[in-house]
Amino acid sequence: MTTDAAYTELSACLRRTHLLDSIGQLLGWDEQVNLPADSADLRAEQLAVLAEIQNAAAANPRTGELLALLEPSDLEADQVAVVRQARRDYDRATRLPPDFVREKAMQASRGYHAWARARAENDFASYAPVLEQNLEIARREAGYLGWAGREYDYMIDLHDPGMSAELIARLFAELKTGLVPLVRQITGSPVRARTDLLRGFPVEGQRAFLREVTARLGFDYRRGRIDVSLHPFCSGTGADIRMTTRFNADEPLDALFSSIHETGHGLYEQGLPRAHHGTALGMNAGMGVHESQSRLWENQVARSRGFWRHFEPRFRALFPAQTGGVSADELYLAINAVVPTLIRVDADEVTYNLHVILRFEIERRLFAGTLAVRDLPAAWTAAAQELLGLTPGSDREGVLQDVHWSGGAFGYFPSYCLGNMMAAQLWYRALALRPDLEADFARGDFTWLLGWLRREVHAAGRRHELPELVRRVTGAAFSPQPLLRYLRERYGPLFPA
Amino acid sequence: MTTDAAYTELSACLRRTHLLDSIGQLLGWDEQVNLPADSADLRAEQLAVLAEIQNAAAANPRTGELLALLEPSDLEADQVAVVRQARRDYDRATRLPPDFVREKAMQASRGYHAWARARAENDFASYAPVLEQNLEIARREAGYLGWAGREYDYMIDLHDPGMSAELIARLFAELKTGLVPLVRQITGSPVRARTDLLRGFPVEGQRAFLREVTARLGFDYRRGRIDVSLHPFCSGTGADIRMTTRFNADEPLDALFSSIHETGHGLYEQGLPRAHHGTALGMNAGMGVHESQSRLWENQVARSRGFWRHFEPRFRALFPAQTGGVSADELYLAINAVVPTLIRVDADEVTYNLHVILRFEIERRLFAGTLAVRDLPAAWTAAAQELLGLTPGSDREGVLQDVHWSGGAFGYFPSYCLGNMMAAQLWYRALALRPDLEADFARGDFTWLLGWLRREVHAAGRRHELPELVRRVTGAAFSPQPLLRYLRERYGPLFPA
Repeated sequence: MTTDAAYTELSACLRRTHLLDSIGQLLGWDEQVNLPADSADLRAEQLAVLAEIQNAAAANPRTGELLALLEPSDLEADQVAVVRQARRDYDRATRLPPDFVREKAMQASRGYHAWARARAENDFASYAPVLEQNLEIARREAGYLGWAGREYDYMIDLHDPGMSAELIARLFAELKTGLVPLVRQITGSPVRARTDLLRGFPVEGQRAFLREVTARLGFDYRRGRIDVSLHPFCSGTGADIRMTTRFNADEPLDALFSSIHETGHGLYEQGLPRAHHGTALGMNAGMGVHESQSRLWENQVARSRGFWRHFEPRFRALFPAQTGGVSADELYLAINAVVPTLIRVDADEVTYNLHVILRFEIERRLFAGTLAVRDLPAAWTAAAQELLGLTPGSDREGVLQDVHWSGGAFGYFPSYCLGNMMAAQLWYRALALRPDLEADFARGDFTWLLGWLRREVHAAGRRHELPELVRRVTGAAFSPQPLLRYLRERYGPLFPA
Repeated sequence: MTTDAAYTELSACLRRTHLLDSIGQLLGWDEQVNLPADSADLRAEQLAVLAEIQNAAAANPRTGELLALLEPSDLEADQVAVVRQARRDYDRATRLPPDFVREKAMQASRGYHAWARARAENDFASYAPVLEQNLEIARREAGYLGWAGREYDYMIDLHDPGMSAELIARLFAELKTGLVPLVRQITGSPVRARTDLLRGFPVEGQRAFLREVTARLGFDYRRGRIDVSLHPFCSGTGADIRMTTRFNADEPLDALFSSIHETGHGLYEQGLPRAHHGTALGMNAGMGVHESQSRLWENQVARSRGFWRHFEPRFRALFPAQTGGVSADELYLAINAVVPTLIRVDADEVTYNLHVILRFEIERRLFAGTLAVRDLPAAWTAAAQELLGLTPGSDREGVLQDVHWSGGAFGYFPSYCLGNMMAAQLWYRALALRPDLEADFARGDFTWLLGWLRREVHAAGRRHELPELVRRVTGAAFSPQPLLRYLRERYGPLFPA
């Protein structure tokens, strides 16, 4: 068999796996958006049979044979990237014993219910044994895949290939050093954003506005749609992106900004080379890079003066009664409100990073064995005081607030902050190339920025790991300094001492 | 291996096939309801990979082994029904050579495009070779499955197990004898229904009304939903039914009655024993029986005086301006309008049967070899004149109007009329048991009727073929006389000589 023939056959195997994955995503989307109340049992059965088929496809022995044939061959750089990712996925599909996979799935389900009950009853003690088990399972999984002794690195690498606990620790320490005083400055400012000014926005108007905005940003509604679900998300592939949002008449900025966030994810997926969907050449580069795209559109772009110069008149025209008593400055402050909170999901874009740092530091200690599960509540409280200047009134406002660990999703949180850092670094590179970017926005023109991201980030697929991708696009090492600069430049003037 | 163990394993295989089928149905529903304009290529690829998996599951050799083990065993009646249907499906999945299946699929696609072009250009001659090929393929398929010499019976049995061309010919001849004079009487009546009185009904009001009506009929919206698509349909399983309708402000009865029709299908699926979905015990009994359920709710129930006694006040309350100038008699006549037309999909419930008879007679002659494809247009014209008293102005109003044959779907049309016949026969049995059924309807109470259908028809699953099911439920042989009686009793008084 020639190398070319093997590569072609491998690509077909990967495409098949990708299609099965896209079917699973559609079922997941439908579950959140359309599923009738009592049809959940059927959906669970459908997803179970599909998971079995997906696993069989991912673990197809033929893929193993093709990889063994291709790995020692003389391949082009693109082919090397495809084979490397295929190996990664194949090993993950084949090295975990079926019994372990079942045990993990059952434990995730048990863990979720244990967490939900513990959170409702503010009862950490009942949840602690579950967390112990989840940590043990995570360690075993890392061992199966050859990461013994580097278990937390394994969890991080799962979400962000190429990142490690040590690298993140260095980046976050530097970020923290700059961020804590900045938050102190903002919260010490006599200026206060009023977030209670925007009330009574009819859903139909909100829907029309966010649809207009996201289409203008460049989302291709001929290959995607936006619907309503309890929690906003973006799923599907670039050939058919399914985004969701949610509406609250008294929180019009929530639907708008969550839609723009999901649009950032959607633009990235729509920008991945369609002919290569399913291989590393048409695959997103990881969660951190994904988040950099959603955050850049949500924050650097949609919280900018230029953006609102263009959209504010339209917003006021759609909602004349609701915005009549709100000045332009009040509106812009509400859009850029900074209010430290104990709850991560309620955090603004400045303090959100502190929530991530808190979780990363705790996860790292858990995996290093320097923090015991039973000591988590105290460690959380101490970290919240240090980082946020706030003391949880209970574990529900502390260690019990997030669902992630209950299902064994460790190493997941850092991506959010890595995405923020990367977004800011991309932003300043874009500004260096096109200093009047905000003037584009003020004209409602986002094509230059999207075109640049398409070429520099989207077209690259998963060829490069996050730090290398950042270095290639910006010419500089991945760093928290651009994020700190951006936060200072945007929030310093809004909240003076 | 014990018989019990084999039966249990067979049930699990069938359940798996059923789940895969339900995933395919969801993808099909989503394609009609949600799919973004340019995402069709992805959906086609998803469906292709799923079809391959469905075929593999249906042709699982293990199923063959289990069937070989079970067929000679001593089984209960229910088990016999399950094994018989499983054999039917297994043979169909395994006896058609893969090359033939591919050829047929390609021909169906080619056929569709040839038909669409021929219809647009009123060019039957260009379509004739495609029809010849489709007939040849249908004959070959019948041969593979052991129906050589009975090819049209095979096509009929595909949709309605247990029916045959000879049996249908006898039933339709009897129906025609009664129906043609009835249509002549109605169209000769000085009374004319006015269907142009109902104009300008806002979609939101229509949606609210049909939702109220269908929920009241008994559709369980906790296990189903209704959305909008170009052509109304009902898909899914009783655990998650997806119906669709379409709205036109000037055709409020169209959305309403098509929704009630789909609700009839949905009620049937929701009534099939859920624990047995996937086996003959939880499977619909065929297209004719399915159609009997949709037609009974749409026609016998929802065109009745009793039904409108209950719903007319609500209809008028929702649309006071639109109904203000319409009398109760005018409304009821519009609901029961009879207007012969050349186009099947526009036909009323009386003349619809004539359209089906026309197609059946032509299909039968095509398969018998007594009608050549090239002579189809002339045969169609002659039949339309005889049955409908109308002459097609072109082949677009004649033989080119239906999509079915272009994809090889022969033997499909008769089910519609068999369903009408069965619906009427069920109706009179129900009336015999509960003479004041319309008084129930006038109180908005449909529970007795639904309960009776649940017990007598839905709970039976696919245990019996249509004629046997009718005999069991009504105590009489399957006959067109109840349909003729119903049409005379409903339309005679409305359209007197």
